Amino acid sequence: MPSEFELIARYFTRQPGDDGVLLGVGDDCTLLQPTPGYCLAVSVDTSVADVHFPGTAPAYAIGYRALAVSLSDLAAMGATPRWCLMALTLPEAEESWLAEFARGFHALCDTSGVTLAGGDITCGDLSIGVTVHGELPPGMALRRSGARAGDVLAVTGSLGGGHGGLRAWQQGERDLDDPLLAAYLLPQPRIEAGQALRDLATAAIDISDGLLADLQHLCEASGVGAELDREALPLTPGLVERLGDTDALHAALGGGDDYELLVSLPPKAVKEARRRLQTLGVPLTVIGKLSSESGIRGVPDSIPSGWLHFHGEAP
Amino acid sequence: MPSEFELIARYFTRQPGDDGVLLGVGDDCTLLQPTPGYCLAVSVDTSVADVHFPGTAPAYAIGYRALAVSLSDLAAMGATPRWCLMALTLPEAEESWLAEFARGFHALCDTSGVTLAGGDITCGDLSIGVTVHGELPPGMALRRSGARAGDVLAVTGSLGGGHGGLRAWQQGERDLDDPLLAAYLLPQPRIEAGQALRDLATAAIDISDGLLADLQHLCEASGVGAELDREALPLTPGLVERLGDTDALHAALGGGDDYELLVSLPPKAVKEARRRLQTLGVPLTVIGKLSSESGIRGVPDSIPSGWLHFHGEAP
Repeated sequence: MPSEFELIARYFTRQPGDDGVLLGVGDDCTLLQPTPGYCLAVSVDTSVADVHFPGTAPAYAIGYRALAVSLSDLAAMGATPRWCLMALTLPEAEESWLAEFARGFHALCDTSGVTLAGGDITCGDLSIGVTVHGELPPGMALRRSGARAGDVLAVTGSLGGGHGGLRAWQQGERDLDDPLLAAYLLPQPRIEAGQALRDLATAAIDISDGLLADLQHLCEASGVGAELDREALPLTPGLVERLGDTDALHAALGGGDDYELLVSLPPKAVKEARRRLQTLGVPLTVIGKLSSESGIRGVPDSIPSGWLHFHGEAP
Repeated sequence: MPSEFELIARYFTRQPGDDGVLLGVGDDCTLLQPTPGYCLAVSVDTSVADVHFPGTAPAYAIGYRALAVSLSDLAAMGATPRWCLMALTLPEAEESWLAEFARGFHALCDTSGVTLAGGDITCGDLSIGVTVHGELPPGMALRRSGARAGDVLAVTGSLGGGHGGLRAWQQGERDLDDPLLAAYLLPQPRIEAGQALRDLATAAIDISDGLLADLQHLCEASGVGAELDREALPLTPGLVERLGDTDALHAALGGGDDYELLVSLPPKAVKEARRRLQTLGVPLTVIGKLSSESGIRGVPDSIPSGWLHFHGEAP
């Protein structure tokens, strides 16, 4: 097995560009030049094989997805992605696997404008920790805590695809062109949508744990309650066909892994928000409203309790 | 098992102070306010149970050590620690274990001036990824690449204690008051020493992989060679008594896990460097010099090849 240093040089070192990286991979630390006056949004997410993704998934998708779930947190703050660091733990370095993993990771770096600026490689069961750094003008961060009674709730894209894709994988689907499987293994963090909404939305969160769980976080942080319109939920195309009506609804409410943005908006801002996202090709759907009465209403009573934790179990 | 959110709230959330944290644990991202004009030094290190530390070590030491190894990278750049994020993967949350783990982590946060600003907890085999952020005035970072032929090589503290402590652990020593075991499980990152040397040293690296391996990195980055004075190596007290002369020397040269700083200095800067470190209570020992001839000389021919990789194996 090549040393950590050889692997980093071979697969994770790229020529620095005009990206604020003063010193990249290869010293004790990475040196970054933040934009003066801006604040820094930082998040770390660890993706563990057979907990958060199937260990036998294509290496390209594993690399892509590990970065995507971290970038989704930047999207939910409305931050502009700048830099990331990767802490890769893997049992044995198969070079063909690593090359594909790096290709997936770098593909999303390129489309999201984030530079891999450092990291480390250690030996152990496969897991990937990605720390992302984004920037925001002062006072512009979208927090979870700004929602007010009377705001409407809206969601980008569609719901349930993450869980639908996990089910498809479990049923043997392996074609990444399958829209559900792609939604699960190659999620698209809503970076541009988050930035476009940061002067309109009162609060935002990304849907990683499932709509209900993340809505609950937003409501608790903001001290409000919510009334959901279950008929309005934008189910991922193909979801009902694969799962049936009931499971499709459950997947949208509790399945997790969708990495869409859930936002609260003053009613008068909805039209402008939708217009801006339309130019980005991202649908925005109103799915309910917020009130001063705590709790979440409009939810079917019949969601099996296991559903809400399904994302935390081995696929 | 309590949820990730409950665990974070209970053990890893502290009241924000005047520490540049605009928004701490509990949103999609942490929001930080970097010092205008300064550059940011960032590093991530993952500590995997039974690879980097014994999984049965005291939880206090595991928490302390996971942060220490990352802070050591900031020390080697001369950076002032500001913020850290922790990605904790653990199989099952025993609350008494977590409380001790958090106590060790926070103890080093307090003495090193770093604020735990975010993180996540996932389920899997025990490993801890710590991303640290430090700050530096422009142009003041200590790099690996600035050493010049004619510089002297010096090292802080003592060498071999990390490996000696690992051997002590393997032999059944469990008392953290044992100096060797403490050197291994509770290493002291040389943060103040790094800052004190940043306008004197021409290059620096922390000794995590072993003196020879890290000296090699420094020499390669700087395009120089080195002549070591093996008689001058400051062996950790008690090391010879425990390992014998030969193994003690091997531990100092190749054992790793010492987290001391290896620096290059112009000869005329040595006296001032030693004076500054003396006020910090940190010894500085000259152990050789750099030349334009590549390679490392003065090394015994007899180091078993396995030694240099020992740190990467299960203790």
